[in-house]
Amino acid sequence: MDEISASTYQCSVARTVEVVGERWTMLILREAFLGVKRFDHIQRDLGIARNILSDRLGKLVDQGILEKRQYSERPARFEYRLTAKGRDLHPIVVTLMQWGDKHAAGPDGAPVELVHEACGQTTTPLLVCDGCGEPVHALNVHPARGPGLLAGSTTA
Amino acid sequence: MDEISASTYQCSVARTVEVVGERWTMLILREAFLGVKRFDHIQRDLGIARNILSDRLGKLVDQGILEKRQYSERPARFEYRLTAKGRDLHPIVVTLMQWGDKHAAGPDGAPVELVHEACGQTTTPLLVCDGCGEPVHALNVHPARGPGLLAGSTTA
Repeated sequence: MDEISASTYQCSVARTVEVVGERWTMLILREAFLGVKRFDHIQRDLGIARNILSDRLGKLVDQGILEKRQYSERPARFEYRLTAKGRDLHPIVVTLMQWGDKHAAGPDGAPVELVHEACGQTTTPLLVCDGCGEPVHALNVHPARGPGLLAGSTTA
Repeated sequence: MDEISASTYQCSVARTVEVVGERWTMLILREAFLGVKRFDHIQRDLGIARNILSDRLGKLVDQGILEKRQYSERPARFEYRLTAKGRDLHPIVVTLMQWGDKHAAGPDGAPVELVHEACGQTTTPLLVCDGCGEPVHALNVHPARGPGLLAGSTTA
């Protein structure tokens, strides 16, 4: 395997971790994908301090990942919906869940399953190549320099 | 969409975030998948303090995600290889990378591309249903209670 090391500021993994790598943030996104959108519901589910939740939600709104909507005027209450950019985080949440199901679940198995509406079955999604449709895994892909890799800042 | 909220301790996302959600840990794993295995190389690439790197590597070894091997006796030097459990984290790293490529890369595009060795092409992996083979995304799956979800600890 080639050794390509993108320095942190150039790496798409690092950039994404900067946005969603904070623990509470990922759990807030999990709630969003589970359909839990209202401040009070998220707060109750996560047992998170209100000021921390407010801070993390504000950052996700600033990033364009969630949008804030008022659903009640008196009292003023808000819900947070995933934008298209936010919905693009779905594969990350799914793959985090799958690893946890396989390696960190208790003897009873997965707490949550996913139903694929296209076929109606419980699904265990897998990553495939968009070109040939065959599975992609750690042992059959290797990294190559992309157009965004600046010359001179890589090591081999 | 059903509203199923697994409490934190039951959720596979949360369990995985507990293991790999720390920022340095995810970057160390990125290095591992890029083929960078040696302590000094990881340290140089990430610009991470040696004591922090040592701590994070030790935790990954304790979790069974990396295994430590000595590759030089004098001086004593070590490298860290992904175990099978560690390689199962590959989809998480790939999906983190993809989101960053799409939403956080500069105008030049992706810093790193993935080549799928089965077909030889640059690949943009996608998640598909293991049953029907059709794409899985945020709008066509919904969560259902799995066997590991304890009765009485869920909210709807």
